[in-house]
Amino acid sequence: MEKTAAYLKLLNKKIDEITLVKEPKELYEPMAYALTMGGKRLRPVMTLMACEMFRGNVPQALPAALALEVFHNFTLVHDDIMDVAPLRRGKQTVYKKWNTNIGILSGDAMFAKAFEIIAGSGEKTLNPLVRLLSKVAIEVCEGQQYDMNFEHCTDVSIADYLMMIRLKTAVLIASSLKAGAIVAGATEQDTNDIYLFGENLGMAFQLKDDILDIFSDEKVFGKKKGGDIVAGKKTYMFLKAFEMANEDTRKTLINHFTNTAIERDTKVRVVTAIYEKLGVKKCAEALIDEYSEKALNHLKSIRVPEEDKKNLEQLSKELLLRNF
Amino acid sequence: MEKTAAYLKLLNKKIDEITLVKEPKELYEPMAYALTMGGKRLRPVMTLMACEMFRGNVPQALPAALALEVFHNFTLVHDDIMDVAPLRRGKQTVYKKWNTNIGILSGDAMFAKAFEIIAGSGEKTLNPLVRLLSKVAIEVCEGQQYDMNFEHCTDVSIADYLMMIRLKTAVLIASSLKAGAIVAGATEQDTNDIYLFGENLGMAFQLKDDILDIFSDEKVFGKKKGGDIVAGKKTYMFLKAFEMANEDTRKTLINHFTNTAIERDTKVRVVTAIYEKLGVKKCAEALIDEYSEKALNHLKSIRVPEEDKKNLEQLSKELLLRNF
Repeated sequence: MEKTAAYLKLLNKKIDEITLVKEPKELYEPMAYALTMGGKRLRPVMTLMACEMFRGNVPQALPAALALEVFHNFTLVHDDIMDVAPLRRGKQTVYKKWNTNIGILSGDAMFAKAFEIIAGSGEKTLNPLVRLLSKVAIEVCEGQQYDMNFEHCTDVSIADYLMMIRLKTAVLIASSLKAGAIVAGATEQDTNDIYLFGENLGMAFQLKDDILDIFSDEKVFGKKKGGDIVAGKKTYMFLKAFEMANEDTRKTLINHFTNTAIERDTKVRVVTAIYEKLGVKKCAEALIDEYSEKALNHLKSIRVPEEDKKNLEQLSKELLLRNF
Repeated sequence: MEKTAAYLKLLNKKIDEITLVKEPKELYEPMAYALTMGGKRLRPVMTLMACEMFRGNVPQALPAALALEVFHNFTLVHDDIMDVAPLRRGKQTVYKKWNTNIGILSGDAMFAKAFEIIAGSGEKTLNPLVRLLSKVAIEVCEGQQYDMNFEHCTDVSIADYLMMIRLKTAVLIASSLKAGAIVAGATEQDTNDIYLFGENLGMAFQLKDDILDIFSDEKVFGKKKGGDIVAGKKTYMFLKAFEMANEDTRKTLINHFTNTAIERDTKVRVVTAIYEKLGVKKCAEALIDEYSEKALNHLKSIRVPEEDKKNLEQLSKELLLRNF
């Protein structure tokens, strides 16, 4: 998609400018590393697209777009420490490559940097943008805390899980789009609609991720199947299967999620077979469709020419049809 | 001091309002705990005093004052993790009372909260205030990184050390004062002078802390003497002693700073005796006087009636004459 590619190029150029290594290099090198590990830049691309859709001045949305990307990467650096994750996108995580203290501190500096960057926004939009970024930052922390709580919790409901992914993932996508609308000076109703488009899209996006962890082509997805199963993560797939299973199958599920004596491949094979037998993939797909429909309805409500919605429509389709 | 007490009361009331525990409580309880451990609220008191000195509207400076206090407490939460410090102000540190992940995450949420609070500042002052807070946040991270680097570094100079405490401590005091000037709409020159008053005061303040670690009344200071010696911290006291000592004394110093087989009391006794023999306390006091004089000169330059400077003058005297 041409538009995405053009925005991506622009964003990467700007990110190169902010990742120049200064002193102390023990602080700045990990920041540069984390910011150039090669993500999709999905969130800032959405900010720019939303700004364009509302006929705003796209370069004026760059500070907000970059701030959101830097913030997102900061959360990954700290999450990887908390999740004891050695790899991200096939590369060593920051705390693993350096150490935990450097992971904490360079993450903090990235968080500060996000606010330094957003301060470059126009005076009129700075107030709502700082409120937006600080609000979503607190929500993402809440989401991460729920995620950690759920690890030790034996009665997580599907509703709990959906609330958690809303906070941890969906609101940042929603806020990235809203930031573009704010810069463009969109009406309150339109701003609200683009936020809800993003929130529902974010829910669908995370549920798609949950499916892809198990039902994906490893070569295309770029990571080993069943990571969530091995990590004992109670994703939608697990929770739905647990809800549908009989007593015996529930025991098998829990055993394969928690018993460290069982081999990785066995875990993934047995749990995947249960998911297939119970048809949880279909359930997840139905829920994704539900969220996608809600998202598109909010996009439909936005009062701009249909023609101008094409880029965001296309991007959301790509996200939901992706097999990687 | 009446003024300080009045401001302290006002600030504590506001802090009680922002520390109401919400869900998830695993995130909000540590935040409330960290914010009510009972510090001196030095930084926000300075913001309010500076605002008053420039005849600004003091309540309008409350968001900036509170944001700086919340930010400061966030840095303590993360620093305690990095320094493996079990106690602060006689109480368990956050990561020790809960765990490291909760320390990281509740610290992050406090950092976000600081920006949420500062967004309550008037539209005209928001831009310089967000720039101020993000800039000082990055500087404090740089200072903490240098501090960690110096632990493993055998050739730290006094100049290195002074640069480090400027970043880690002094600029936050400087920025707290500057925030008050910004809210009050002080001139650029006055704003610069109050910043430099604070920076020099902050340097003197930290050097005083270095002295008090060794030469203080334990009952009044509230913690055991020689914590820096036992932790092997290369403070001004150590660096100056090392500079002045002969080869033999240098060896004794290094041995007592690094050899974990030597008992705590022996370490403190031997190193203190070296400091006394070399007269490093006097050197530190001379340097404090130098910074204090610079600070007061900047205060003198500020173009407001001398009468209006009394509160800040008094506060800085209290800070530098304190024996706790």
